[in-house]
Parts: sequence; structure tokens; C-alpha cells
Amino acid sequence: MRIPGIRDYVIEKLQCILNPRSIAVIGASRDPNKIGHQIVKNLIESGYKGRIYPVNPKANEILGLKCYASVKDIPDMVDLVVISVPAPIVRKVVQECAEKGVNGIAIITAGFSEVGNKKEEDEIVEIARKHKIPILGPNIVGILNSTYKMNASFAPKLPFSGKIALISQSGALIIGLIGWTWLYRVGLSKVISIGNKADIDFSELIVYLTEKDPDTNTIAIYMEGTDAGPELVEACRRAAGKKPIVILKAGFSKRGELATMSHTGSMAGSARIYKAAFLQSYVIQAEDLFDLYDKALALSLQPPAMSDRILVITNGGGAGVLATDAAEKYGIPLSDTPPDLAERLKKYMPPFGSTKNPVDLTGQANEDWYYGAIVEAVKHPDVGGIVVIYCHTAITDPMKIGVRISEATKIARDYKKPIVVCFIGGREVEGTSNWLKEQGIPTYPTPARAIKAMAALREYGRIIERIKKRQQ
Amino acid sequence: MRIPGIRDYVIEKLQCILNPRSIAVIGASRDPNKIGHQIVKNLIESGYKGRIYPVNPKANEILGLKCYASVKDIPDMVDLVVISVPAPIVRKVVQECAEKGVNGIAIITAGFSEVGNKKEEDEIVEIARKHKIPILGPNIVGILNSTYKMNASFAPKLPFSGKIALISQSGALIIGLIGWTWLYRVGLSKVISIGNKADIDFSELIVYLTEKDPDTNTIAIYMEGTDAGPELVEACRRAAGKKPIVILKAGFSKRGELATMSHTGSMAGSARIYKAAFLQSYVIQAEDLFDLYDKALALSLQPPAMSDRILVITNGGGAGVLATDAAEKYGIPLSDTPPDLAERLKKYMPPFGSTKNPVDLTGQANEDWYYGAIVEAVKHPDVGGIVVIYCHTAITDPMKIGVRISEATKIARDYKKPIVVCFIGGREVEGTSNWLKEQGIPTYPTPARAIKAMAALREYGRIIERIKKRQQ
Repeated sequence: MRIPGIRDYVIEKLQCILNPRSIAVIGASRDPNKIGHQIVKNLIESGYKGRIYPVNPKANEILGLKCYASVKDIPDMVDLVVISVPAPIVRKVVQECAEKGVNGIAIITAGFSEVGNKKEEDEIVEIARKHKIPILGPNIVGILNSTYKMNASFAPKLPFSGKIALISQSGALIIGLIGWTWLYRVGLSKVISIGNKADIDFSELIVYLTEKDPDTNTIAIYMEGTDAGPELVEACRRAAGKKPIVILKAGFSKRGELATMSHTGSMAGSARIYKAAFLQSYVIQAEDLFDLYDKALALSLQPPAMSDRILVITNGGGAGVLATDAAEKYGIPLSDTPPDLAERLKKYMPPFGSTKNPVDLTGQANEDWYYGAIVEAVKHPDVGGIVVIYCHTAITDPMKIGVRISEATKIARDYKKPIVVCFIGGREVEGTSNWLKEQGIPTYPTPARAIKAMAALREYGRIIERIKKRQQ
Repeated sequence: MRIPGIRDYVIEKLQCILNPRSIAVIGASRDPNKIGHQIVKNLIESGYKGRIYPVNPKANEILGLKCYASVKDIPDMVDLVVISVPAPIVRKVVQECAEKGVNGIAIITAGFSEVGNKKEEDEIVEIARKHKIPILGPNIVGILNSTYKMNASFAPKLPFSGKIALISQSGALIIGLIGWTWLYRVGLSKVISIGNKADIDFSELIVYLTEKDPDTNTIAIYMEGTDAGPELVEACRRAAGKKPIVILKAGFSKRGELATMSHTGSMAGSARIYKAAFLQSYVIQAEDLFDLYDKALALSLQPPAMSDRILVITNGGGAGVLATDAAEKYGIPLSDTPPDLAERLKKYMPPFGSTKNPVDLTGQANEDWYYGAIVEAVKHPDVGGIVVIYCHTAITDPMKIGVRISEATKIARDYKKPIVVCFIGGREVEGTSNWLKEQGIPTYPTPARAIKAMAALREYGRIIERIKKRQQ
């Protein structure tokens, strides 16, 4: 059942689905092992401030909340209904939701098109579309909104809070991906499990997130495939230049394509078609899961790079060489330090340092040299972005250096130039890396990953340039 | 000054240099800010059981140890001399070491060929070669031996202990790389900083480590370049099939080559020449720093894969698709599960699971299903290695699953089949990941990195096959 374009009522009602004022959980249960119990519990424990209505004809109360026999008995408007009843009952429940006039439905329940049960899925969607009630799913983990502290899912906790909206077609990956946000300080605004996408597909979510969601500034997508290709292209083109979109498309290999089909029942389609479509629609592609987060993190925290001239500042020659290799590999080959800048940088290094690009402050580099060198580079008109590398040494304090890098980054913001950081070391640098990310500075453990993140910022800069040209 | 082949006396004396019974530190200092102080302190604090002789004409005692005016005054044989006096004095000190008849010298001091001072470096090497005393360096961090708890360097601590010997041409990276061993549980036997390699080059270290060092089973190298290409090729070919060698060659890009030259004064040479030489000499190449550790970890902990038939077992379809993509990308494309094995695997999954490769045990998979599925796969003659993926779920305990995977791996060892694991999740799975590595099971955070590690095990299997053919 092909989605008929991008529907206005879906965009409008996504506001209620993703930021609901009230939620009914149909299939709420007193049994702690049941998903219907976990969702109510997660809603309460996440600190959700809206109204929660458990629905279960066999219970009076669940987790201290009054329970209703049917959604129709709830004496209040309902923004979002979360359904986790067995598959054969879902259609009846959706019918009741339609009669009640709810604003949106998320169907957690599995056992539809992904196992060949396409007919029932289609019938459910037909009911919902007739009443203009958008459906997310079926076969999803749920919806998490970290800005509003709402965990309407069976994932155990909210992600680390930030500005990236994550849409995942794989439910199984979601709990792991949320775990990573805490480990690696990648801040998410929302996590949306999209499942079988029987009704709402990627396209309408992208339009909503780019045009209507002030809590999101970057969209990260794990995608296996879609039947609504033209809509996806249209949504991404509409988003272009407003908010960056990073997509990890799984199933690019021949066999991966087959695996995808058996997994979510959706056509993965030819790798080449997707690549061409992404290029055409200004999408930044990710190579794997870490790459998806690495790029989204940089894009959510830093401005795009509006020139190719990236300067690398390091305290270790080896790390500088690795950064140079990576810069060539990822499409932002380094060029020479402008001569007048080189001259000024000499103040921040010993005589055996190097002002070439990479600029090598040497292992003796202290926090003031880092600060001075970064600020000089930021102010130079021929520098478009800076990658700062710190290799841990026996004589330097990473936190002191981190604090000064953070101060220099504030100045870079005034010049709208991106800074990306690499801290190489063990536990000693982990604290500073996390702190830097909390200060809005994307920080990575290897030169290659930092350079790749800067390359994404440059790619987004080029996208903005293309759009400007298109508009002229 | 080209190294004259692989010298027997160097191989012999490397035993004394890397596992010294006694160490003299020339330039030992009472000033805690001096490197000469830090080295004595690090030797004591690391738990080194050999004899330590600080040498400093201006001190009687350093950190409780009797101090000598000259190395010649030490009333004992000296296996290793660590030199950290200013560059202009090094030649005189080396001359004294020659007169004393020490077994080997490590020159920490910088300021030689890397800053254009090639003449003095050559003169020092000439003295040492005349007396058949191998020199490591100059311009190095030092030597660390985790088996014998010896930290003869200014890096603040020993690495996490294991079977990988790390040789690094970059000194600045060493402290960071040691920090990582604790964060990621990558066990090293030795860390050898090679610096300007004025005398000892990669080749002789490789020969010693493969032929004489029972504490090392895998060699990992960060290399910028060498002037002794033929010797490197010969050493790697001699090592082939005995111990795997993984090399990260930096300076592969055009500009990286230039950066390398200014950094260590060594020619990086054309990327193509190195790639061809590595291929010819059975070297496994790494793409970046994480890849170097990822591959070395797998090779040090698991047997090589002696067939292309790799089976992926997962509890999440999406992670399986990503693994499938990666397998194609890294040269071990997945093939179908053998039909009789597929039949037997059905016991370990619900009806909607998949016995195709990737085998999807589904999100309901418990520890016994994992164990059962892995053991069935291990026993099947058409399976050459297994990649096990666990996506964290709300209903499973990662440690329970880890314990059963570890039990299954013991059986795999009897069959000489490698197991590589991917655990996707946050803090909840970090403990189990580390524990698995401590049990000898290489564990990674993403499907792509696990597959890449398995591809390295397959590459090493292919190397063994090539050598067998050559010997026939």
C-alpha cells in the first residue's frame, strides 16, 4: 500500500504523536513481564508530565493509575494511543480508537507484514486513514522524547539528551543505540521506531522534524529500505539546508538485500538506486553505526564548514600523519598553512615544532599554546575549520587543555567556523572527551574519526552552497 | 646508513634489551620533572624485579637507589642502558657503554636525525656497531614489558597484559595507545618505541619477536616508513605462518608522505610499493588505529579461520543485515547455512526466527539458545568460524549470555574454529564485553568491526594455506 505523497494531516498530527499531552496504553498489564506493563512503568519513571491512561478491561488500577476498559471510556481527549495487545485484537482496538477520535496511534505489536500477515495490516491502515489517524508501526519499540522526558516504549531508558532525532527501522538496535548515547555522549532529542511503516514512512517524519520540531537540529536514520522512494527524495530535498540528514542504509550488499527482505518485509532495492537518490536529495551517507553517530554528533553541535581549507593542529606528528591520510581519504585533502598564519603560529611551539598543515605544537604543547594556535587559525580568513588533536603525554593535563579548547571554540562560534577534536588516551582523557561533548564540541578517539566528522561538516557546507546556487 | 641485513648479534642481544636482568639509567635525576627521574620511578613502580642502576655524577642516591658517576663504575654486568642525557653528551655516554661492554642501549634523547642532526647520530651508531651493541632509538619513549612488569620508559604505566607486541614509530601515540589497552582490554606483551631507528629497524625486532619471544603471539606495528625495505620483507616472510603481523602504515596519502618525512626524517615511500611489499610478505594491513588493535586482538586470542564459510548468529535482524554488508565489504561474503545445520538450529529459536545466514535467534533469544546454536555451528564441518552478535534487549541479561558464549567458545577451541563477538549496548554490556575479552574472546561494539576482525582471522588462515602450498 503505497503512501499517497506527504499528507498534511499526518504532519499536523505528528505533533500530537511525538509530543503528546495524553497517552492511552492499550494492553496495559499488571504482569511486570508484559510489554504493556513496561510501557506504563517507563512512562511513569521517565518523568512524563502528561496524562497516562492504562486500558485493560480486566484491571481497575495499574501502577497506581486508574485503568479503563476501553479507550472509548477515557473522559479526556487522547493524543497518542500505544497499542500492545495481541495481533488478532489490534484491528478491533484501532476501530475503537477511530470511534474515540484519537490523534495518533503507535502499534508496538508484531506479527503483521513482517511475517507475511499483510492483509490484516492493510485493513488496519485503511480504518486509520479513513479517520485521518496516523499510525506508527506496527512492530515497533515505541517513541522516546528526551526533551519532554517521555519514554513511550519498552526500551529501558531515555537517551542522553541532545538535538539529534533518531529514526530506526530496526527495533532490536534501538536499546543498544540508546545505551551508546550515554557511553559516548551523543545527545538525542527523540528516538522513533518505525517498524513496518504500514502508514507513516520516513518521508513524513523527516518533514515534521525539519519543519515543525524546534528540539531537533539534525536527523539520523537507520534505514533498511522503503517502498516510498519518491516521497523520501521529496522530503529530503525539502529539508535540505534546513537540517542535515544522515542516513545509514543497511542492506547494500547483495546478500544484505535478501536479509533485509526477510527481516522487515521491505524491498531493500538496488544499492545504486539508493546512493543516487541520496546524492540527489542532499543526504549525508553513513558507512556504519559508529559513523552514523559520529557524523550526526558533529552536525548537531557545530556549524558547517564553508570552505575546503581545514587546518589540523596536533601535539603528535604521528597523529598528524594519520589525520592527513584520512583527510585525503574522506575528500577534504589538506593544503598548506597560509604563510602569514604560519608565521603567527610560531609563537605557540618550540623551534622544532612545525607550522605546516598539520601544525605540530609538539609533545611540549600546553593549554595556552593550544588556545593561542586555535584562535589564530579561527581568525584567519583562509581557514574554514579546525581539527584539534591531543595525544596524551606524561606531562600534560587533558582537562586543562580541554578547558582552553572549549574557550577557543566559543570564539570560533562567532566566526561560524567548526571545531572538531580528537583526544587519544585511556581513562585519563575519557572524562575530558565527555566534558567536551557536553560543551558542544564533537570529540573522537582517533584522528580518522575526527577527520571524517569534519568531512561531514564540509559536506553539509557544500550542500548549503548547492542550495544557494539552485535558489539564485 | 642502511642496515646491513638481519644481524645475528642483534637478535641475540634483543633478549637482553627487551628482558634485561639489569638496567642502568644514564641521566637519572632527582628532579621529578626530568625524564631521567621518571624512568627510574617507572621502573620501580612497575614492579621490575631486575637490578636498577641510576647513573648521575652529581647525585649519591635517587629514589632510594645508589647512584653511580659513570656506567663504568657499576660493579655488575649491564643488560640494558637507558640514556636520557642531553643530545650533545650522548656520544660520550655511548662510548663509555662500549667500554663497559653493555648488552644494549635505548636512547630516549631527541635532537638527532629528526631535526637534521644526522651526522652525530651516524657517529653514535658507528661506535655501537663496532662493539656489537644494538641501539634502539634515538628519540624514543622507551621499552615496556608487561610480562616482566618492566616500564623502562617515560610512559606513565604498563599496558594491560597480553600476547600482542606493539612496535610504534610514533612516540607521541604510545601513551594514548597504552591508555586504550586498559579501556578496551587489548592485551600487550611489550611496547617498543622505535624512534629514528638509527640502528635497530623493524626487521630485527620482527625476527626476534617471532622466533625468540614466547610471550608474544601477534605483532602489531604502527609504521611511518623504513629505509630498510628488503630486510622488512625478509623478516615478515620469515615470520609468516609463525606469528601474524598487522601493520598500520601511516603516510599513505600524498601529503601524509610529506608530513612523515618532516616528522621522523624517514622516507614514507610510495603507497603502492608498501602495499605490494606487504602483500608479498604476508602482512595483514590495518586501516587505522582502532583497526590495528581490533585485528591484533582477534589474532592474538583466536585461531585462524581455515575456511571461507563464516556463520553469523544474531538476536537482531538489523544487526545481521549490517554484518552481511560488512562481510561482503571485507572479503568474506556470507553463504547459505548448510541445510542439515539449518534444521538443527530450529531448536534454538521461535517459529519466526531465521535459520538463514545470518541466523536470527530473535530478540527472545536466551543464553541457552545462544549456547546451543553456537555449539551446533562449531560442530558442523562446513562452518569455518562464527560471529556472534548480541543486541541488548529489555528482557535479557548480557552477562548470562556472555558466560554461555564463553562456554561454547571452549568447545570451538577443540575444533580450532574462531569465534568473534559483537555486543551492542551501553554500560550494561560494557562489563560483559570486557569480561569476554579477558576470557580470550575478541568482542567489539559494532557488527562491522566484529566482521572485520573475523576477516583478519580468515586472512591469516589464507596466509597459512599459501605457506603450506609454498612448502609442498
